[in-house]
Amino acid sequence: MALVVQKYGGTSVATVERIRSVAHRVIDRKKQGDDLVVVLSARAGDTDNLLKLAREMSPRPDPRELDVLLATGEQITIALFSMAVKDLGYEAISMTGYQAGIITDHTHGGARINWIETLPIMEKLREGKIVVVAGFQGYDDEGNITTLGRGGSDTTAVALAAALKADVCEIYTDVEGVFTTDPNVYSKARKLKRISYEEMLEMASMGAKVLHLRSVEFAMKYNVPILVGSSFTDAPGTLVTREEPEMERVVVSGITYNKNEARITVADVPDVPGMAYRLFKPIADHGINVDMIIQGQGGVPGRANISFTVPKPDYEEAIRLTETIAREMGAGPVHGNPHIAKISIIGVGMRSHTGVAGRIFETLARENINIMMISTSEIKLSCVIDEKYTELAVRVLHDAFELHKDPQGHMAVKEES
Amino acid sequence: MALVVQKYGGTSVATVERIRSVAHRVIDRKKQGDDLVVVLSARAGDTDNLLKLAREMSPRPDPRELDVLLATGEQITIALFSMAVKDLGYEAISMTGYQAGIITDHTHGGARINWIETLPIMEKLREGKIVVVAGFQGYDDEGNITTLGRGGSDTTAVALAAALKADVCEIYTDVEGVFTTDPNVYSKARKLKRISYEEMLEMASMGAKVLHLRSVEFAMKYNVPILVGSSFTDAPGTLVTREEPEMERVVVSGITYNKNEARITVADVPDVPGMAYRLFKPIADHGINVDMIIQGQGGVPGRANISFTVPKPDYEEAIRLTETIAREMGAGPVHGNPHIAKISIIGVGMRSHTGVAGRIFETLARENINIMMISTSEIKLSCVIDEKYTELAVRVLHDAFELHKDPQGHMAVKEES
Repeated sequence: MALVVQKYGGTSVATVERIRSVAHRVIDRKKQGDDLVVVLSARAGDTDNLLKLAREMSPRPDPRELDVLLATGEQITIALFSMAVKDLGYEAISMTGYQAGIITDHTHGGARINWIETLPIMEKLREGKIVVVAGFQGYDDEGNITTLGRGGSDTTAVALAAALKADVCEIYTDVEGVFTTDPNVYSKARKLKRISYEEMLEMASMGAKVLHLRSVEFAMKYNVPILVGSSFTDAPGTLVTREEPEMERVVVSGITYNKNEARITVADVPDVPGMAYRLFKPIADHGINVDMIIQGQGGVPGRANISFTVPKPDYEEAIRLTETIAREMGAGPVHGNPHIAKISIIGVGMRSHTGVAGRIFETLARENINIMMISTSEIKLSCVIDEKYTELAVRVLHDAFELHKDPQGHMAVKEES
Repeated sequence: MALVVQKYGGTSVATVERIRSVAHRVIDRKKQGDDLVVVLSARAGDTDNLLKLAREMSPRPDPRELDVLLATGEQITIALFSMAVKDLGYEAISMTGYQAGIITDHTHGGARINWIETLPIMEKLREGKIVVVAGFQGYDDEGNITTLGRGGSDTTAVALAAALKADVCEIYTDVEGVFTTDPNVYSKARKLKRISYEEMLEMASMGAKVLHLRSVEFAMKYNVPILVGSSFTDAPGTLVTREEPEMERVVVSGITYNKNEARITVADVPDVPGMAYRLFKPIADHGINVDMIIQGQGGVPGRANISFTVPKPDYEEAIRLTETIAREMGAGPVHGNPHIAKISIIGVGMRSHTGVAGRIFETLARENINIMMISTSEIKLSCVIDEKYTELAVRVLHDAFELHKDPQGHMAVKEES
């Protein structure tokens, strides 16, 4: 008998029919003898509608009151879902973040969970009830309602799984698991059976939309196994776990792409201490996130070229800022290119295998795809290329590393339940 | 400097514009130096929409979970309202029933307030904040969310006023106060400056829609003055207070009518102990409320005629039941009439003035309006008549008691602020 935490997202509970369907799934699991805690998001669209309503009310809605408003979304779902489960003859009880003992800091709109008092949930589990918890919310030490920011329901689920020492945290969404790459870009993409936390972190931050970064960090910290799967089918999902030695035998796990960035280059920056600070501090002060930073020798001795990427929506503002700063520091011309894509090749096996970078560069060169920037970490290599080559680059790299084959070397078969 | 509890109902907060308008009113009051607690209902329609959603989810929604669902309505309003007040530069803080310390029994859907822990509210008032409390909800001693049933927001407001020892409880709605009769029926209806709790109780139970019965009972028990007024205008409202000696100088305060009842008569009921029980217990067991009961001598010695009224929607079922019971007890024929109206004449002065009943009967007789049933209490006399005479009866009685004149004998002037 296992203790299982399940999370269902907004599209999975969008309608009365969907909720009923998920209730059936949950009850089927309960019948197998497991103890169940179900974390639910607001119905798809509700949170955005509430945000819209708040902005109609006020141009800058008070953060504390905005949390009070947004928390109603999840409260509606947990009530409806519990009704559905009880209707089908099983015991269920809903709990708001407060009732579930989820204590956070004071940061309204992006609160961090400090502590979970597990007694209320454990008590109801012992009574044999399915416990239905509102995702995305908690309360601070003054009893104010707080919300956890985007991806908050994933965080709630993983945090509960950690606090309750659950056997697994199952995150259900509208995709069947984590794939070697986006199946919409390459039909040969294969669903991964297993992936490590570190690889998932790289894939989540690279724009793979399956799991939120915070929840993966949390799971890694507390060693919670996460199963990612679909709430619409019974296909087996992807298990995200601590890295195990055999994982390193696989050189590359996946390839992600991000078309939402733009590149800016400053030539001939005086190569003295403090210059990077003079360039990047004002950009950060304007709330612009900088992703990749590459610094290399400039054309002139004592000068460097600095290239960096920013989110595309911030490109105009960032390049104006950079031009101002470059003039002030006596640097050379500033160039920008918003039509780029960042392709990332991810795998724990990259640590122990040589030649991965070489194979990447060779593969792209063969297609005449120019690489504008390269950035590497222990388990990831990112290339910035012209965005028109995005899908081509993903496909040729996917083939170069034979990602369509599972680690035993077999071709992927589209798994049916 | 007074401590004032104000309550605004669903139509008063139905839209973003209405909420902003009420926020201005509340702030104007705050500027006068008063401490303010504002109780809000859900936006007009929200509660009914949530009920509809619950019934889509389940034919018999679990009562505990239904309360979790319904409580979101008020939570939305208090958040939006607090945003509006803060936007206008004043300090406000919202509180759910839980946060406001409103402790109830376990009766989901119709909970009674057992206790209010006033410290959280007092603390925020001392900080100079406007405290915005969700009406219609509380929590039980296990931390479950409860709702108070219809009229619950009025009850919340009066209970808070009692617990906080407020100077007044102001209930704002879409009418300007309590009138001598329905202004839609008689244009000479006059707005009352003052009315006693007992008169208000009679008028609230008679169908006057201004204040809910429970909140008046609560106010009477704890001696909380209630001011009933409009949230749309600044016209002075009606003050509902403890009865004072000078109130008895006014013979009649108001006339109400109720067209939502039906009459049933059983002739020749054996006049022995237990017969009323044999008739009314099954009717009660079917969930049918009986309002008036008149028993008088039957045509035959040892027999009685019993007439009673039930809500019109229950008429068919009630008359079938009655016919069955009448047959079993060997009573005479059963007659029914759904086309009736109950006219009630209310006034604390009726205790000390003779001739009131006589004037009522004389007035109706002059119009050839037959009285089918008469029922009296200390401060009320009710007549059942043919419903086609409803408006005529109201008007001629209103004139007979000169209700268009205020107690000083002046003609009512439509008061403008």
